[in-house]
Amino acid sequence: MEQKVRFAIIGAGRIGQVHAENLTRRIQGAEVVAIADLVPEAAEQTARRFGIAEASGNPAEVIRRDDVDAIAICSSTETHADFITQAARAGKHAFCEKPIALRLPAVDAALAAVAESGTKLQIGFNRRFDPNFRGIRDAVRNGEVGAPYLVQITSRDPEPPPLSYIRDSGGLFLDMMIHDFDMVRFLLDDEVEEVSATGAVRVDPAIGEAGDIDTAIVTLRYACGALAVITNSRQAVYGGDQRVEVLGSLGSVLCENNTPDRVIRQTEAGVIHAKPLYFFLERYLAAYADELRSFIRAILNDTEVEVTGSDGRAPVVLALAAEKSYREKRSVAVGEFSP
Amino acid sequence: MEQKVRFAIIGAGRIGQVHAENLTRRIQGAEVVAIADLVPEAAEQTARRFGIAEASGNPAEVIRRDDVDAIAICSSTETHADFITQAARAGKHAFCEKPIALRLPAVDAALAAVAESGTKLQIGFNRRFDPNFRGIRDAVRNGEVGAPYLVQITSRDPEPPPLSYIRDSGGLFLDMMIHDFDMVRFLLDDEVEEVSATGAVRVDPAIGEAGDIDTAIVTLRYACGALAVITNSRQAVYGGDQRVEVLGSLGSVLCENNTPDRVIRQTEAGVIHAKPLYFFLERYLAAYADELRSFIRAILNDTEVEVTGSDGRAPVVLALAAEKSYREKRSVAVGEFSP
Amino acid sequence: MEQKVRFAIIGAGRIGQVHAENLTRRIQGAEVVAIADLVPEAAEQTARRFGIAEASGNPAEVIRRDDVDAIAICSSTETHADFITQAARAGKHAFCEKPIALRLPAVDAALAAVAESGTKLQIGFNRRFDPNFRGIRDAVRNGEVGAPYLVQITSRDPEPPPLSYIRDSGGLFLDMMIHDFDMVRFLLDDEVEEVSATGAVRVDPAIGEAGDIDTAIVTLRYACGALAVITNSRQAVYGGDQRVEVLGSLGSVLCENNTPDRVIRQTEAGVIHAKPLYFFLERYLAAYADELRSFIRAILNDTEVEVTGSDGRAPVVLALAAEKSYREKRSVAVGEFSP
Amino acid sequence: MEQKVRFAIIGAGRIGQVHAENLTRRIQGAEVVAIADLVPEAAEQTARRFGIAEASGNPAEVIRRDDVDAIAICSSTETHADFITQAARAGKHAFCEKPIALRLPAVDAALAAVAESGTKLQIGFNRRFDPNFRGIRDAVRNGEVGAPYLVQITSRDPEPPPLSYIRDSGGLFLDMMIHDFDMVRFLLDDEVEEVSATGAVRVDPAIGEAGDIDTAIVTLRYACGALAVITNSRQAVYGGDQRVEVLGSLGSVLCENNTPDRVIRQTEAGVIHAKPLYFFLERYLAAYADELRSFIRAILNDTEVEVTGSDGRAPVVLALAAEKSYREKRSVAVGEFSP
Repeated sequence: MEQKVRFAIIGAGRIGQVHAENLTRRIQGAEVVAIADLVPEAAEQTARRFGIAEASGNPAEVIRRDDVDAIAICSSTETHADFITQAARAGKHAFCEKPIALRLPAVDAALAAVAESGTKLQIGFNRRFDPNFRGIRDAVRNGEVGAPYLVQITSRDPEPPPLSYIRDSGGLFLDMMIHDFDMVRFLLDDEVEEVSATGAVRVDPAIGEAGDIDTAIVTLRYACGALAVITNSRQAVYGGDQRVEVLGSLGSVLCENNTPDRVIRQTEAGVIHAKPLYFFLERYLAAYADELRSFIRAILNDTEVEVTGSDGRAPVVLALAAEKSYREKRSVAVGEFSP
Repeated sequence: MEQKVRFAIIGAGRIGQVHAENLTRRIQGAEVVAIADLVPEAAEQTARRFGIAEASGNPAEVIRRDDVDAIAICSSTETHADFITQAARAGKHAFCEKPIALRLPAVDAALAAVAESGTKLQIGFNRRFDPNFRGIRDAVRNGEVGAPYLVQITSRDPEPPPLSYIRDSGGLFLDMMIHDFDMVRFLLDDEVEEVSATGAVRVDPAIGEAGDIDTAIVTLRYACGALAVITNSRQAVYGGDQRVEVLGSLGSVLCENNTPDRVIRQTEAGVIHAKPLYFFLERYLAAYADELRSFIRAILNDTEVEVTGSDGRAPVVLALAAEKSYREKRSVAVGEFSP
Repeated sequence: MEQKVRFAIIGAGRIGQVHAENLTRRIQGAEVVAIADLVPEAAEQTARRFGIAEASGNPAEVIRRDDVDAIAICSSTETHADFITQAARAGKHAFCEKPIALRLPAVDAALAAVAESGTKLQIGFNRRFDPNFRGIRDAVRNGEVGAPYLVQITSRDPEPPPLSYIRDSGGLFLDMMIHDFDMVRFLLDDEVEEVSATGAVRVDPAIGEAGDIDTAIVTLRYACGALAVITNSRQAVYGGDQRVEVLGSLGSVLCENNTPDRVIRQTEAGVIHAKPLYFFLERYLAAYADELRSFIRAILNDTEVEVTGSDGRAPVVLALAAEKSYREKRSVAVGEFSP
Repeated sequence: MEQKVRFAIIGAGRIGQVHAENLTRRIQGAEVVAIADLVPEAAEQTARRFGIAEASGNPAEVIRRDDVDAIAICSSTETHADFITQAARAGKHAFCEKPIALRLPAVDAALAAVAESGTKLQIGFNRRFDPNFRGIRDAVRNGEVGAPYLVQITSRDPEPPPLSYIRDSGGLFLDMMIHDFDMVRFLLDDEVEEVSATGAVRVDPAIGEAGDIDTAIVTLRYACGALAVITNSRQAVYGGDQRVEVLGSLGSVLCENNTPDRVIRQTEAGVIHAKPLYFFLERYLAAYADELRSFIRAILNDTEVEVTGSDGRAPVVLALAAEKSYREKRSVAVGEFSP
């Protein structure tokens, strides 16, 4: 008999629905027992859509259910750390969306609860499961680029999120670039020691008025001495643009954007290729399922998860260092933040 | 309540398993009630693998089951026409792999049975559901290439099938190029009037000894006057290579091969892109599911199927004309074969 | 002291001016002594433009000048064979534009005169000097594709020539596809034994009324058994499209079109690459100079030219065979034409 | 009669020979009267090679010759400012390789001499004449990217220069990245206000021991608020890699590397494209000639040169600011350097 991990999903928003669809339809070893949202109607609607038996307005109750093995935390960022802690205390494994929290004490409290309980925690850095980025990481690990010199990450969203979202997001470094800070660590299996950030408001003045930036460049120095640069823009009208390159002594490995097809039009207007897949939901469709498959395998085989709690903490530190660097117009040592 | 089409699958070979996996795991509106194979062990094994309740060594019986709405015919080519006829007489819809048969009388008998019963028949020309080819067809229909001049189809398998398969396959024109004959019709919504074929044994002399060829070029003339050329090779060691181009008065639309990723390595050896997806199972993974989704929609909504019986007949005629042209070293009018 | 080959140019039309510019400005080992054209004003104008001392309305006289080592024959096709003969009899080397003549007796008479005189004759198959096609030929010779299976040549002009030109051109097979017939021989170092042609009028009905076609597909069989296909269109509105591919047992080698730059625009309209270089003058700019450099080296070093008289004859035979095949709707053995 | 600019070349090293070849062989409106080098044998050898009448070991004398209109200064960097001054005082126009000098007082003295004499001075930022970069700049000017957000410049040499060269080069920012600082200004027609630099020794520890770095990232802020990032590496084993991208509100415009051909090999090892042209001499072959053509046009038509003295000064300021930022680990305002 096939063994299944029984899930409860907390949060029925956009990303909660992505995981609900994957867990109910695309992934063999999973079962979704319940979904909870502080807005009970949202939970009910998603439950109906994906045939989930139980919908609840009370996450805490759902987390403690006996018939639940693992919690998928898809609620808003400020609730992540608390739900991780509740899950750990209830003896449940947790898969949690990034970031764990916007401030380190909250992150550390959650990680301590997990350490104490011995449950598993995986952070939702879905891009680690994208075949392009994984291919580049594997090439680096296989020694194909030799000694690393430079990492270059280009990350552009097709359009900025609503201002209401921006206001509570923690800012570009913690909300958007957090993925790239994780990618920096993923690609090289090394830690960053120094961060230097520049930012600007170019896309929409209202983003600046909301206290955030929409365009940024961050340079980083790894412990091994290699350098990295991340560029972010909240708007690329041709579609989400996510490219990564690692240059080293033996050459470089990079990736182009995924496209919906490989059709090319040759007309008087030019030789026209397809635009990149529009946004993360399209681009990372398979990666979202694969990260949960990986989490389920770690539970069923009782092995280490592929994206640990400390993998969730490190990019928060880098984002905080970037913020500080941006404000103080100087290079910031990661050591300025307690380990 | 969601409505489901109840399927029986006939044939538990490679393509039967592809459809079994899609119908049981990836497609919402389907249910597989039974699977039959003349080798009962094969049916049983596939039934176990995909959780199909009933396995049988008797296709005829399974086709007549009351709890079955539609038959997926995945058995060997020489049985297709007969199973289509049985399905039609039992009032069942049929989805049948290509080709319907290797000779026209058998094709016509099967189509007559379907016409009489009023059931639906869809032919498994999966490439019509590939996003690249569909994108090109749509561009042509939208007038993006203007008046068509030339259609160019390149079709190469990564490796030849076993000789045992080749011997019963009907030959390259009926077995391999049949897909391209269908593509010729799909891309332009026009019929072919004239066929001229050349062939050679280049890949493996044993294929020649088995009475077949492994390399071929066929040129065709559409009723509208446009020309087409199909090239086939049984072997491209870098992976399956399937490209299509339509040139017209406003330009050309073509496609590159799909690849597993978009990773590029820049080394002293060159700038190295990923090879094409290896073979049809990888390349047409999504297309195999989409053709069944289309068939299910046609049943549930009682609309015309997207690939009709006469769409299944026409490429057989073209393949027979190509064979004749190849043997007689002359251009063959399609009209030489009765309508 | 640097040795120079002293040229006379016959013909001051478009291609004559290309060669005049190359010989006077881009090529070190050449000197242009005179230019002749049946229209003396044309000769004078080109002479002025490129600083050529002597302009003449009398080609025969210019060919016999004592201070001339080599003749560049750039006049209209029907005069080629005669000027080759005159040059040979005057003991001058000749570089002659393709084709040598539209009919074999004229070709053979010219080649006989050259053979008798022992002078050098090089035919202007400029595409043999294009780095892409040469790179593919070299890869084939180096064994990179293994045993050859299939050669595919796509050749499209951006726009048809004037009808007046078409009328005297000898038809698409002898005027346009002649380059591709040469390419077929160049890529594989093998001879063609069988030809099968299809053609259509798609671009402009007036071309049909002038007795020609504007769209054609020709398939060929090499002595070694490999197959080739050439497709031609007189119009590709996005620019001249000239691609070549050789498939063999170890893979395929192909080329993309040259473009004026490698700029890519990513906009809402798509990811837009540069169009191909517009026409042969742009695409083969360097090749036109390189073929003359090669001719000059052969003269100065007294070695065999890279494109011989029999290289000029063979494509004429293939074009004549294609015409016959097109008219008679059957495969034509090259042996039907005397060797 | 065609008007010619009479040149003297100062410096017979690698770049001096490039300009000598272009001025004597590829450019119509130029004549080279003399070449001088502090090593007279070098001057003589280059004079012989390109048929230059006069070779000298005395640059000052050559600069003052009556039959010279313009000086091409191709000597080592520390002599540039002085030769510019000498040329200006002699009433000669000057084309000078980058950088004008490694320190601002020397730059300013040279520019003052030019201003006083009213002669023309063009700086050898050859990349401004590369069709790719020029195409991007033109697209930006035409409004194709809309309001600019981000400029990304990737610049990698295939191999580091000799250590002896590195020691006198002024360091990576002044020697290598100077081209990119110019590119930053060229692409956007805007000035930079803030610079932040990171650097590392990754390619060769000996470069570090010589007091330089070989890997660097610099971020810049334009007056308009847009950001830019430049990455440099002294080694990319697959060939020189020079890519540029401008992202703005309407999309992005970028370029791929130029390659010697467009040949693609499809083998079991992958789909292999040509490597980039190896180094600047190959990549910018045409640009080196075009910058001199532009200079000659400016002289003959008495118009403003395309790359002015202040275009030569500004990148020196940016390089000095980058050095300061790198040493002090902070963002440096360009205003810290006097205008």
